[in-house]
Amino acid sequence: MEATKYCRKINYYETDQMGIVHHSNYIRFFEEARLDLMEQIGLSYVEMEENGLIIPVLSVDCSYKKPLHFGDEIEIRSSIVKYDGLKMECAYEIYCHDELCTTGHSGHCFLDKDMKPVRMKRAYPELYTKLKQLVEA
Amino acid sequence: MEATKYCRKINYYETDQMGIVHHSNYIRFFEEARLDLMEQIGLSYVEMEENGLIIPVLSVDCSYKKPLHFGDEIEIRSSIVKYDGLKMECAYEIYCHDELCTTGHSGHCFLDKDMKPVRMKRAYPELYTKLKQLVEA
Amino acid sequence: MEATKYCRKINYYETDQMGIVHHSNYIRFFEEARLDLMEQIGLSYVEMEENGLIIPVLSVDCSYKKPLHFGDEIEIRSSIVKYDGLKMECAYEIYCHDELCTTGHSGHCFLDKDMKPVRMKRAYPELYTKLKQLVEA
Amino acid sequence: MEATKYCRKINYYETDQMGIVHHSNYIRFFEEARLDLMEQIGLSYVEMEENGLIIPVLSVDCSYKKPLHFGDEIEIRSSIVKYDGLKMECAYEIYCHDELCTTGHSGHCFLDKDMKPVRMKRAYPELYTKLKQLVEA
Repeated sequence: MEATKYCRKINYYETDQMGIVHHSNYIRFFEEARLDLMEQIGLSYVEMEENGLIIPVLSVDCSYKKPLHFGDEIEIRSSIVKYDGLKMECAYEIYCHDELCTTGHSGHCFLDKDMKPVRMKRAYPELYTKLKQLVEA
Repeated sequence: MEATKYCRKINYYETDQMGIVHHSNYIRFFEEARLDLMEQIGLSYVEMEENGLIIPVLSVDCSYKKPLHFGDEIEIRSSIVKYDGLKMECAYEIYCHDELCTTGHSGHCFLDKDMKPVRMKRAYPELYTKLKQLVEA
Repeated sequence: MEATKYCRKINYYETDQMGIVHHSNYIRFFEEARLDLMEQIGLSYVEMEENGLIIPVLSVDCSYKKPLHFGDEIEIRSSIVKYDGLKMECAYEIYCHDELCTTGHSGHCFLDKDMKPVRMKRAYPELYTKLKQLVEA
Repeated sequence: MEATKYCRKINYYETDQMGIVHHSNYIRFFEEARLDLMEQIGLSYVEMEENGLIIPVLSVDCSYKKPLHFGDEIEIRSSIVKYDGLKMECAYEIYCHDELCTTGHSGHCFLDKDMKPVRMKRAYPELYTKLKQLVEA
């Protein structure tokens, strides 16, 4: 799929005493961008949780190329790069002033309210098809 | 009641680019100290939530007298200063190197899982009596 | 002064296991709104810190009337309510779906890079006048 | 090197509305454990920053095997697994009730206050030797 774009500004409380954004916060930026991506493709995570579907994080990685600073306007480009019916993988790139500053990934599964794996194809056929099509597009 | 004591160290990620602890984190330190206080008096918040009792925060205030820094060993003295059967008020003092650095308060109520107020005297008579006694002691 | 308006959405990572926004995060929302207010009146905090002026927080208070949830679109109305040349006080109201959910205040002083108080009238006469005028307007 | 051990308890504010620790917080737990490791081997990060040496994070990865919950007592086992004079890599394992719940890594470089790479062998020969020996042990 083509990457979706999500923009936001760096907050003061996201910096640390090195004068840059604390590295843990990028994992939160990825989450913001991922939930925005899902909304952009018509999947509201608020609704999904209300319907009993949760999508926890199985893994993350992040590579910090250029530090981000308070006040920076960043653009996060996100895409779903894998989906096999059980697991989903997302990729992220953070740009600031047109420069690539950060890259990362997150891996996810689909669980019901009791934290049991969901057979997506049967339980959520529309979502299953949508994710399949997106990744192949 | 006599204040309980809770000690912890300041983490790097709790600083901001001013080189001091970000002011929002003190509200988290108060929570740590309050939940520790409850354990010290025999009330486990883990168990309370499992039993369907939640104690949300109605209000907080915090006065920052001396800044805290990464690596500082702090001691938080907490006490329950008011309890009328419906609402509870806690007070906090943060010390570092025997100097008073921060003071604050938090106000709370007692709700059930549906966010409805709980009649403590009837529903949790032991807890009611314990809190009453503590405040009067 | 008339309150400035700042809008943002509640992030997933800002919730806690009570299913609502953790109370410490409101202090961060106030900071976002305050720094936005300063930009709206022509004072960039990024520039101010670069010029050696820092505005730490002396006190905060917050009153939680209605909880906020993941996905909520909130509007924060902020204003400077006091300024005497040494200290500044800001007031905040958080609205969600046109309902007042949170109120709060923060108190501030003006320091130089060595954490010494700044004589605003002499050192930053324009900023001094601007803040004076705003509060009286 | 043999892994150092660092213990701490999960705080309420570290949970999210899934009822488990938010995945971004593990990156903070790794930092706590890493700075504790450095102290255990005689390297105080407070002193290092005061002496003008900073150790930013170049990369992180984290694999979430079992979720952590509020109140959990966790043990983080950390070790330095690579050091070539320029870059350092640390590995982490989080245990709860003797079960491995999380694994992860972080990559680091060594910079001076102007964010320039430091020739460790020349500028900090003792630290250089210590890290070399640790990794080979």
